[in-house]
Parts: sequence; structure tokens; C-alpha cells
Amino acid sequence: MSEPSLNTARALVSRGPLSKGLWKMEDVTIREPGDDEVVVRVVASGVCSTDVHFGNVEEGDWGECYPCVKGHEGSGIVERTGSSVRTCAPGDPVLLSFSSCTACSFCASDHPVYCPDFNDINFLGRPVFSPDSADSNAEKVPSIRGSFFGQSCFASRTVVRETSIVNVKGLVSEGEVEKLEELMLLAPLGCGIQTGWGTIKRVAGAGQEDIVCVVGLGGVGLSGIMAAKALGCRTIIGIDVLPSRLSLAKFLGATHTLLSPASSSGPTSLIPTIRALTSSLDPPSAGPTITMDTTGIPALIRTAIAFTAPRGKILQVGTAPPSAVLDLPIFEFMVQGKQYIGAVEGDSVARESVGELVGERRAGRLPLEKMVEGFVAGRWEEAVEGMRGGRFVKPVLVWWGA
Amino acid sequence: MSEPSLNTARALVSRGPLSKGLWKMEDVTIREPGDDEVVVRVVASGVCSTDVHFGNVEEGDWGECYPCVKGHEGSGIVERTGSSVRTCAPGDPVLLSFSSCTACSFCASDHPVYCPDFNDINFLGRPVFSPDSADSNAEKVPSIRGSFFGQSCFASRTVVRETSIVNVKGLVSEGEVEKLEELMLLAPLGCGIQTGWGTIKRVAGAGQEDIVCVVGLGGVGLSGIMAAKALGCRTIIGIDVLPSRLSLAKFLGATHTLLSPASSSGPTSLIPTIRALTSSLDPPSAGPTITMDTTGIPALIRTAIAFTAPRGKILQVGTAPPSAVLDLPIFEFMVQGKQYIGAVEGDSVARESVGELVGERRAGRLPLEKMVEGFVAGRWEEAVEGMRGGRFVKPVLVWWGA
Repeated sequence: MSEPSLNTARALVSRGPLSKGLWKMEDVTIREPGDDEVVVRVVASGVCSTDVHFGNVEEGDWGECYPCVKGHEGSGIVERTGSSVRTCAPGDPVLLSFSSCTACSFCASDHPVYCPDFNDINFLGRPVFSPDSADSNAEKVPSIRGSFFGQSCFASRTVVRETSIVNVKGLVSEGEVEKLEELMLLAPLGCGIQTGWGTIKRVAGAGQEDIVCVVGLGGVGLSGIMAAKALGCRTIIGIDVLPSRLSLAKFLGATHTLLSPASSSGPTSLIPTIRALTSSLDPPSAGPTITMDTTGIPALIRTAIAFTAPRGKILQVGTAPPSAVLDLPIFEFMVQGKQYIGAVEGDSVARESVGELVGERRAGRLPLEKMVEGFVAGRWEEAVEGMRGGRFVKPVLVWWGA
Repeated sequence: MSEPSLNTARALVSRGPLSKGLWKMEDVTIREPGDDEVVVRVVASGVCSTDVHFGNVEEGDWGECYPCVKGHEGSGIVERTGSSVRTCAPGDPVLLSFSSCTACSFCASDHPVYCPDFNDINFLGRPVFSPDSADSNAEKVPSIRGSFFGQSCFASRTVVRETSIVNVKGLVSEGEVEKLEELMLLAPLGCGIQTGWGTIKRVAGAGQEDIVCVVGLGGVGLSGIMAAKALGCRTIIGIDVLPSRLSLAKFLGATHTLLSPASSSGPTSLIPTIRALTSSLDPPSAGPTITMDTTGIPALIRTAIAFTAPRGKILQVGTAPPSAVLDLPIFEFMVQGKQYIGAVEGDSVARESVGELVGERRAGRLPLEKMVEGFVAGRWEEAVEGMRGGRFVKPVLVWWGA
């Protein structure tokens, strides 16, 4: 196979909602990087339900969003850098995370996920790719949006904002094959893994006295289980609708697991079950002290708020539709001193958290290989549908050589 | 006037809801104190909207609640103590606060307001008073509930749980007249004042960088303003429907005040107003970093959540009806990393917080005389109606000599 030219790529282009069958693998050309951008040859890209969420909205719901390229858990090798880029150089192995403005008070105080421009920067994107036409002399106009989360890594080569780059040179293996294998496994660190881990560790501040409950055991939820285990939390409860996820949660550190009723209207039966469980502990508790919801389902969130102990924290991590409303019983919530806390990306600074997570993996506390399932990029449909149906926790598309 | 006998009292008896005109001043007899109870001759009792809230429910809504005696911000002098009482002795000046079980994990870890028995202990009460009958030889059966918040201090003499007692011997003046005047002024410390102060200081952890906004400027809200001032918060915003409250808030430390639209359905106009205000500060902010709601009105709470800055805390302190529901927009709340926090009594341990507050008053940071309005107990209707209508911030009924 000949070395591909430096501005062509294969990309999974969303030309409309996924549910209408409008995601297609296409040959594209990338535009030149701007001063603060980096061309990355993608090794792998994790598939996350956020890709599906934003790649399934109706045309116009989020501005002019199609055609575009999703993907926001990328890893790769730097090929070229814009003139102002200082944090990486060609040949460096990198992981990709979200972007932020770097200048506002939130960015300046190490809370970049609450940057006021976060949505515009990460969700709206900007033109990056142009379709390859049959006429090779035709002018290349980048008509396909890239820069989703600053990266749009559902492509074999992409243009990435420098602020999305986490340089892992020195943190991953030097050997060519080992490095690629490691980058495949580490691809999801920059979003799903740091979200679950950071929410439990940094936002909730979990410690040994805590009873942690995780509702929904996808990549984020299971990362929360692993964080609770690493922090020595005394009880760790995992809840999901899939028995296979409960087994995996047990393997990763859950002390107890519960099968949730599949219907989103009937989760209140969890309340007495959880109460019975935590009241039988030594010492007993009137519920979990920390509950993390990764589902975004209002009926489940309300249930989680009800079964969490007085003074307990309920962390909202799962994305709900923009119109979704939580019916929160004010009086009961108040007199029990509960805390409902929104959290994005585990309130992480990716350049710090990714380094921490690579260390945790080396120490054996982050067995990613139990969650990650690799697919050559051409098999993306199987990966995406397998994630949605619950067969795979964290499918990763491998672009190297695609 | 002859010294009254040690088991008779005047009491404001709630024989049914206040709105039905069923609160009456009556002559009563108190029962003997139990081992862990204290007979207190009441000097004064603050009037709080919680008295009205619980003294206005329909028969049966909160168990068998009438007839009963309300009042939960008392001060007085100990007359007699039960056999196991160790924390006070006859003659000691005391302030009265809430009660808790003292044995559970919340009580043991200095969070007694979240004691699982808090509601039963503080709201249900137990028989304490019997009506004086014309037949002075008739057996006295205590058929009127006392022990509201462990005290039921709307009476010239009452039986108080020892756990509600804060002994202020050594903290107040020794002189007879000065002591009584001070106890009148300090009566509300054990509830309203410690609630507002403790919520801002202890629960929210306010500091100099914070922009604090208080919605509703009653006794609790104004105490929050004073706490924010004492903590040096850079901006302090007070919101109320009454211009007189805004003036008082300014005097007590608010840097900005806003008149709220009186209609509870139309408070969303506050959102752009607050945004304009905080964005003009140096440094600017996308809203208050700490907002305390003392109103319990769902539309106002939702507005407060909307105008609070990303990563900001919204403290729920105002009591809503048990059925009231907050429509919380999940996605918007989550992506802005907001925190909605229930708080009761400022999460205080009364024996510590009351001592602290007496010190703050001596240091001039708690000018209670600007909030407290004394009424001889017989004028209770004027006091209660004046509070409800907003004429008085903190009416205090004076029982000494009544």
C-alpha cells in the first residue's frame, strides 16, 4: 500500500440523521490547517452516544449542521502544525479531547468545560473537508463541517484545534506497533473515560466513606465504577438494564449490582431495593451518598434523587434532550439537604486528566481492554449499532491503514 | 403582680388553621417535665413564616395536629430541669433551637438537621399543655400538643427538650434588665438568623470572590445578606417585592438591590437584568456565583437557576408546599455545571452557631435591632399579620410579664 497523500482522507460523513441512513463513508480532502490547527493522522476514534445524539438531530435543530463529520474521542500522530502551534510537533502521538476558548475566566481557572463558547466551539464546527469529485482539477471548497469537539476524528486524517490536542509523547510506548495498539486503546480517554472518572473523583470528591451508585453502565458509567474502586469507596453499586453490564461492573469494582426495570416509566421500584441494600450495610446508610446518572432519562433521575441519602450528591452526566424537564419535589429535596449537580467531562482539564489516566492504566486501575472493542473503520455501522444496542461498551474505529 | 405559680401559663393555642381564626390566647397548665426536658419561662419568641405554614394546614394534613402551640424561636430562663438534664440549671438564660435524636449518624457527624427523625421530633410534637377549666379540681390531662421544634415557645412557660436548649450563660449580660432586653433581641437566632447566616457561610462556603444574590428579604434572607457582608463577598444583590426591604438590605450590606415583579408568574424579566448587572462588574461574571432562594416559589426558583452563573450554586432555603414541583431543564443545567442544593437551618449545630452569632452581634456585624420588632404577646395578631404583609421583618412576642 502506498503512503497516502497528505490531504486526502476517508471520512464517515453525516449527510443527515443517522436514523435516516445518511451517514456514509466517503473519500474527502482536508483543507490546510489554520495557524492554531494541527493535521492529525487518526489512529483510532472511540464511538460515543454523543456522536449519535448530535448526528441524529433533524436538519436545522442545531443550526446548519449537515454535512459534517462526527467523532470526538480520537488518537493519532501529528503530521503538520499551524504556524502558532507550540504544544506538539510532527510525529508526536496525541490524544484528542474537547476545545475551549482558553481566554475566559472559566478556561483561566481550570474549568474549561464551562467556557461560554464551549457549545459553539465544540458542537457547531467549521468547514474542514471537501468531497472528492470525479474531476480532480475542480477547486476544493471545504463544504463538510469538521472540528466537532475541535477534532471530527471519524476520518483517517483530520484538522484539529490545538486546544483539543493532548500530547502523549513520553507517556506511550516508543515501539511502532505497541504505540499504535496503545493509541487504539487510549482513544476514548479524552471524553468518556475522563467524564466518568473525573465526575466521581473531582466533582463528587468521593472518598472511602462514600457509597457510590452509578445509574447506566456504558463507558462513562463503568469509568465511574473504576474511579470509585481506585478511590477505595466502601460500597459501589452499579445499575443497568443489561445483565452483561452488571457482570462487567462487578469485574471492574462494583460491590453490588442491580438490574433496572427496562421501562423508563417504572424505575421507582429501585427505591426500596436500594434502601434495603444500603440499610443492611455496616454502618448502615439511608441510601448512596453519591449517585451518578449517565442516562439522562428524567424518570430515572427523579428515582435516583429519591433513593440518594440525605446530604447526598446526585451528579447529572447523562445528556437529556434540550427540552427534557426534571420534576423535582422541592420540599422533600430541601429538607433532606440533597445536592443535584450538573457535570460535563468530569470538569476536567484534559492535558492533566489524560496524563493521570494513562498512569492509572499503567498501575492496573483502568483496565480499558475490558471495555474497548476495536473495529476497522469500514465496519462502523456494526460498531455504532452494537453500542446503541448494548453489545459493546466502547467500540473504537481503527483508521490506521483504512 | 404576684409571681405566677410554676405550672400555669398563657399560651397562643392553635385550635385550627390561622386563616380560619382558630389561634387563641388561652390560660393553660403545663405538665411535669420528663427526664430530658426543661421548664423554661419564656422571655420572647420570634414569629417565623414556618409557624404560620404549619399552623395553617388543614386538620389531618400533618397527622393529628390541633390543638397545638407553635413558636420555635424562643428565649427564656430555666425554671426546672428533668433528672437527666446536664447542660443547664435553674436561672440560666437560654435560647431555643430545633431538636434532633442525638444518636444517628447525622447527629453524630454535626449535621443534626438531616436526622431521620427530624420531622417527627420537630413537627409532630407531643402533649404538653392542658386547658384551664373552670373546675380547678378537675384532673389536668395535657391535650394540647407542645414540643413544636422541641419547644412550642408561643407561651409564657413551656416544656422544652434538652436538645433544643442553647445555654447562653456567660454570653449575655448579667444585669437583670439588660439580660431580658438581650434575650428579646436574640430570640430569633436559633432559627431564622442561623438559617440565613449558616446557608451562606457554611453550606455555600461564600468567600471574597463570590457574587451573592438573595431572593426574598425576610429574616432569613437579610441574615444571608449580613453573612455575605461579614465574609467580604465582592457583590451582594438583594431581591424583593417590597421597596422597604431593599432599603434595609442596602443598609445591612447589599451592594445592589432589585425590585422583583410581584406576580409569581412573571419573574423571568429578572434574568436579563441580573445578567446586565453582573456582566458590568469588574471582573464581569455571567451571573451570581451563589444564589439563595428564601421564597419557595417554583417560578422564582427556576428563574434563580437560570440567572445564576455556570458552576454557580442555588441554595434552596424557602419552604415550598409538599406537593410543589420544580421544572428543572436538565440539559441546560448540566452543561452549565450548576448545583441546586437543599439546606435546612444553615446545616447548623445550634450550640455552636448561636455562640458564633452572639459574637458577631457584639462585633457589630449582626445588627438585629434593625430587623426585630417587639410586641407584647397579647398583640400577637398584629405581629403575625404584620409579618405576613411585610410590614415587619422579624416580629418578636414578649411573654415576660404577660
